[in-house]
Amino acid sequence: MTLAIQSHTTNEVIHTDTVVSYLQKLIQFKSVTPQQAGAIDWLAKQLTDLGFNCEQFTFNNVTNLIAKVSFGDGPLYAFSGHIDVVPASGGAWRAEPFSGDIIDGAIYGRGAADMKGGVAAMLCASRTLLANVAAKKGTFYWLITSDEEGEAEYGSLLIAERLAQQGIQLYGCIVGEPTSHLHVGDTIKNGRRGALSARLVINGKAGHVAYPENTINAAHLSAEVIKRLTGITWQRDEPSSYTSLQVTGINIANVVDNMVPARCEMTFNIRYSHGYKSSDIKNEIQFALGDLAQYLNIEWERPCESFYTSHQCDDNCLLTHVEQAVFKVTGSYPLLSTSGGTSDGRFFANSHTQVIECGVRNNTIHQVNEHVPIADLLIIEQIYTQLLSNLFNKNARC
Amino acid sequence: MTLAIQSHTTNEVIHTDTVVSYLQKLIQFKSVTPQQAGAIDWLAKQLTDLGFNCEQFTFNNVTNLIAKVSFGDGPLYAFSGHIDVVPASGGAWRAEPFSGDIIDGAIYGRGAADMKGGVAAMLCASRTLLANVAAKKGTFYWLITSDEEGEAEYGSLLIAERLAQQGIQLYGCIVGEPTSHLHVGDTIKNGRRGALSARLVINGKAGHVAYPENTINAAHLSAEVIKRLTGITWQRDEPSSYTSLQVTGINIANVVDNMVPARCEMTFNIRYSHGYKSSDIKNEIQFALGDLAQYLNIEWERPCESFYTSHQCDDNCLLTHVEQAVFKVTGSYPLLSTSGGTSDGRFFANSHTQVIECGVRNNTIHQVNEHVPIADLLIIEQIYTQLLSNLFNKNARC
Ligand SMILES: [Zn+2]
Ligand SMILES: [Zn+2]
Repeated sequence: MTLAIQSHTTNEVIHTDTVVSYLQKLIQFKSVTPQQAGAIDWLAKQLTDLGFNCEQFTFNNVTNLIAKVSFGDGPLYAFSGHIDVVPASGGAWRAEPFSGDIIDGAIYGRGAADMKGGVAAMLCASRTLLANVAAKKGTFYWLITSDEEGEAEYGSLLIAERLAQQGIQLYGCIVGEPTSHLHVGDTIKNGRRGALSARLVINGKAGHVAYPENTINAAHLSAEVIKRLTGITWQRDEPSSYTSLQVTGINIANVVDNMVPARCEMTFNIRYSHGYKSSDIKNEIQFALGDLAQYLNIEWERPCESFYTSHQCDDNCLLTHVEQAVFKVTGSYPLLSTSGGTSDGRFFANSHTQVIECGVRNNTIHQVNEHVPIADLLIIEQIYTQLLSNLFNKNARC
Repeated sequence: MTLAIQSHTTNEVIHTDTVVSYLQKLIQFKSVTPQQAGAIDWLAKQLTDLGFNCEQFTFNNVTNLIAKVSFGDGPLYAFSGHIDVVPASGGAWRAEPFSGDIIDGAIYGRGAADMKGGVAAMLCASRTLLANVAAKKGTFYWLITSDEEGEAEYGSLLIAERLAQQGIQLYGCIVGEPTSHLHVGDTIKNGRRGALSARLVINGKAGHVAYPENTINAAHLSAEVIKRLTGITWQRDEPSSYTSLQVTGINIANVVDNMVPARCEMTFNIRYSHGYKSSDIKNEIQFALGDLAQYLNIEWERPCESFYTSHQCDDNCLLTHVEQAVFKVTGSYPLLSTSGGTSDGRFFANSHTQVIECGVRNNTIHQVNEHVPIADLLIIEQIYTQLLSNLFNKNARC
């Protein structure tokens, strides 16, 4: 494939239908969460042209796309991705953040790495798969949303629900998030820790500081609450996937120098190992707070379940497939990780569905001058191409 | 003395120059801290008419009065009082708060109990003392300020400094604050606990909650700080005068759900036993915080020293004088207390000067419908009259 490397100063695209032109096109849609801004329309058109059946649905300003192509009997695999991006306001960018300009061999723009680059690479890989005349098996889904960076309330969650309603059980799902560290393919994620937030109100009893015996100091209770929360031993942790509880805020309103405060608000966030589900976490915390419960009111917020995909004992181990694809392209096996934030992988992972995340480097995501080197983009395209071949070609041998 | 009891509906004063008319007059000056609003001018006029030499000085809107009458050799005693009052805004008063209206045998108004009532009673008692032809001894000072309820920065502190500059060493000082509980004279204060406030900034290190190993959570540090502060054992406490530290506020600004907070602000207030001076308290706290000091910045605020006056072994024991005066008038000895907030007594108390507080009941002070029953006012006037007789009459026998 001949690539069109643009000069530093011009924005002219010479070659079309390459991973570079696809990514530039995607970056130019100003698809800040939850707006798809035409990005999903365009993707649906491309996938339709390749032979996919596309179903697009919008709910509460979030647009989701389910695209499907069937090759016959065999396992169902999906590619999960998002075309929404975080805002690009603030900071001095080297290029306009929705330009896709190429500077020094890298494509600049909001979403270049997270994760329009992965989407563009998978689009090329899908085209290659479908252009290949070899006999194929199974079914391939594209599951794209415009609400991953936001609350993710109406995005991949609704896609997963719709698949379930239709009795569709995925065998595996590859997520195109940027997982790599120093080199493309050096790290993949075979799980994510869960996340859970809480808003806690401590209700004591006000009074004058000179007569503390008639008061219940909510500030003093907050210290005991924090000690208990941070003192929990998380028995199901593993060295590579540990649980951490961080208090993120404490506030006492209307502070008066001679008054014992009656009310203290606290927020905290837990990132928890895949050994737990959110219900386990809530139980552990309630148990630790114990007798303090009489003073407390807890509201749980933004639960994100953990997931974990280990090696399977049969031939269709998605993790092995991804490892092999990475090895074939890069010559090295990837490191397995479950660190970092949350991803939409949690909505698809279950006891039947293996979920692996594999994508470009994540060193510039959500930052000013987010970019992806064209060389990196070509590597991830090759990895995806190899992976799709492993998954769908009848006679593929890992 | 015949009293003018006003009807519920009229504000007409029939008799003048009684403790009732004096208090009504004082209440009608709207002397909200630090404004004297004419109250000190009027007092100085009354005292001058009685034979006192008056020196009045104003600094930063605070007016102070030093009035003096000398009877010859003998100990120097002072009466300390304030004519400033806290605001009367808010709440539905039975009478206009600066009216001095009489309802059901009580004088209503802001300051009626705290402490214009005490000032009015001492004015009558002083008039009686000076009208008495018996031989007298010693010197009598009136020390009045318009800044007790506020920061007290330019009030009795400056009066005490001025006396010290002039080489005047008081032997004793009686403070007219409302100290009584159920009956006038049932409780006097022979000391006050000290008070000290602090503003503490905890500086940690921010970071993403998913990577807590790179952070120092200021909220978690706050819990450790509170545990240490509230865990201090105050060795010099006595059952009747204990030390208490109350955290009054905690605040983390700019809370973000996925960020470990770098900065937490905390305020706390200590009420401490007379076994300590403020420097001791600071030392105890610094010691308790120990190795946390690297994360902390403490600013000390509003120090109010403690004081304590015990029985003296000689004939001139102010505490005994006050106890005897109360007993003569009420038939019971007063309870000694050091509880409650702070008073200006701290500015006059030292190793040479005994300080005793004795005044009307404090059940309505700083509240809506502050009032003092006329019957109470007459009792405190009698106690003061008896006390002044004990202190200054040459042949007085306790
Ligand atoms: Zn992403
Ligand atoms: Zn007062």
